[in-house]
Amino acid sequence: MTETPVCVLGLGLIGGSLMRAAAAAGREVFGYNRSVDGVQGAQFDGFDATAALDDALSRAADTGALIVLAVPMPALGVMLEHIRATAPDCALTDVISVKGAVLAQVESAGLRARFVGGHPMTGTAHSGWSAGDKDLFAGTPWVVAVDDGVDSEVWAMVAQLALDCRAFVVPARSDEHDAAAAAISHLPHLLAETLAATASEVPLAFALAAGSFRDGTRVAATAPDLVRAMCEANSEQLLTGLDRSIELLTRAREHLAAHASVADLVEAGHAARIRYDSFSRPDILAVTIGAPGWREELAAAGRAGGVIRSALPVRDSRE
Amino acid sequence: MTETPVCVLGLGLIGGSLMRAAAAAGREVFGYNRSVDGVQGAQFDGFDATAALDDALSRAADTGALIVLAVPMPALGVMLEHIRATAPDCALTDVISVKGAVLAQVESAGLRARFVGGHPMTGTAHSGWSAGDKDLFAGTPWVVAVDDGVDSEVWAMVAQLALDCRAFVVPARSDEHDAAAAAISHLPHLLAETLAATASEVPLAFALAAGSFRDGTRVAATAPDLVRAMCEANSEQLLTGLDRSIELLTRAREHLAAHASVADLVEAGHAARIRYDSFSRPDILAVTIGAPGWREELAAAGRAGGVIRSALPVRDSRE
Repeated sequence: MTETPVCVLGLGLIGGSLMRAAAAAGREVFGYNRSVDGVQGAQFDGFDATAALDDALSRAADTGALIVLAVPMPALGVMLEHIRATAPDCALTDVISVKGAVLAQVESAGLRARFVGGHPMTGTAHSGWSAGDKDLFAGTPWVVAVDDGVDSEVWAMVAQLALDCRAFVVPARSDEHDAAAAAISHLPHLLAETLAATASEVPLAFALAAGSFRDGTRVAATAPDLVRAMCEANSEQLLTGLDRSIELLTRAREHLAAHASVADLVEAGHAARIRYDSFSRPDILAVTIGAPGWREELAAAGRAGGVIRSALPVRDSRE
Repeated sequence: MTETPVCVLGLGLIGGSLMRAAAAAGREVFGYNRSVDGVQGAQFDGFDATAALDDALSRAADTGALIVLAVPMPALGVMLEHIRATAPDCALTDVISVKGAVLAQVESAGLRARFVGGHPMTGTAHSGWSAGDKDLFAGTPWVVAVDDGVDSEVWAMVAQLALDCRAFVVPARSDEHDAAAAAISHLPHLLAETLAATASEVPLAFALAAGSFRDGTRVAATAPDLVRAMCEANSEQLLTGLDRSIELLTRAREHLAAHASVADLVEAGHAARIRYDSFSRPDILAVTIGAPGWREELAAAGRAGGVIRSALPVRDSRE
């Protein structure tokens, strides 16, 4: 297959890095950004960018581009209406962090048939075009969604884009992605906020604080708006993790109050961390995209830690 | 005053490092260790060590040494009995992490008059004589207890030992130390165990885990026995911190369930971490050890972040 052009909507940290990485891989890439500053930054750096959304989308429709949604969650609805009006047949992906919420909006915009969600698990504390970096995705996981009914051709296109950006692909269902993201990203933020807030009320605590406090509260330095946005957008999955954590802490609390041992919690936590330290990422090699059961096979392999480091064979859907 | 010899009981990581650091500062230092291996290690490295406890204590009594308790908590009772029998008039300190529990045992052994508790806030993941390092304390906080009634002469001796080991002294009451240690050390351990245990139950979590999970669970790799020992020995203070954390998490949980904002927790945590990042340690200069109200003044200064980096004047108690 000829390589599809890439149309990036939103040229912030992730969209701007994606534009640079795709171009570095030799892909044709063009993009749209709402603020003229971002457009001028991209143009100054030699990229093909515009502030005229309908121009970008007409070009995507004419060239059969893969459209990448790289706008903040609140801008998604308007963006999808424009795509539906101007480029409804283009393959479509996104790089937004909460997959269930994006999928629901894409579905209600009537664009699910050609949509495959994505989430590069990377970032920095900075934002905007100027913060972008063509190497941002190198060697990091990029989730590509294998939800029921996703199109194999579009899936292969999105996976290829991630590989071109030098990420490795983790295949996962949107709901499982969101549950995992709650456990490994949103919950750690709330626990770090809790630790910082609790200690700040204790005289002398900061005077004695050392490594365990510093590491345990590092992500509490993240801008509060970002933390709120990600936690609140994934509230359903985060509630499950929060409830479990509160349950474990409450049980430890009861044991301590009864002068009994906290061995249950401490040993479970230690065993989990040791398991994480030895977690390996085997290559997924034996799945053909589009073959019977391919989505379920990829979801199972991803769940087991499997990743895709080079393109898998694709069964021609027109055979 | 002539410099007092130092008698170290227990030559593990902390006691062994203290022996090396005191010797490097030119202090006369000798020690006892229960296991012959530790004694031989120390002797091989040129230090004055014995496995005969009563010999070490007789020498301490004869030379008017400052005795440092550097044994694990469970060995403390027996050690105090020997001291009471052989060297009851020696100045006494300790380097054990939970100050209230040590103070209670010292009191019930009838040795409180010449006792001033201590806690160097440093360590490594290793243990035993061979893990020791004369630089272990350099530039780290060493809490010296200013409990009601502590003797000014002993206090000055213990502070001088910490300074000779190149630590800086944080004056603090034992109960405040324990509350702070619960908040900045014991609670972070339980939260890290909770995060690791919660995430380990979620399929795909380890596959997607990145920085916030790695940092948030780092201390869950600590040996479970150590974590249990410190949490269980400080259970009363830890309960206060745990209850507050459970309360904050439960409130955030209720807000999320009602599709309301988690701004309260996120903003409090962020503000606390920012405050911690800019926490400074002013020098305590204007207090005379032994002058009226000196203990209260030092406790207040320590609470405000103040530290002692060079010896304070001492009022002669025989004046």
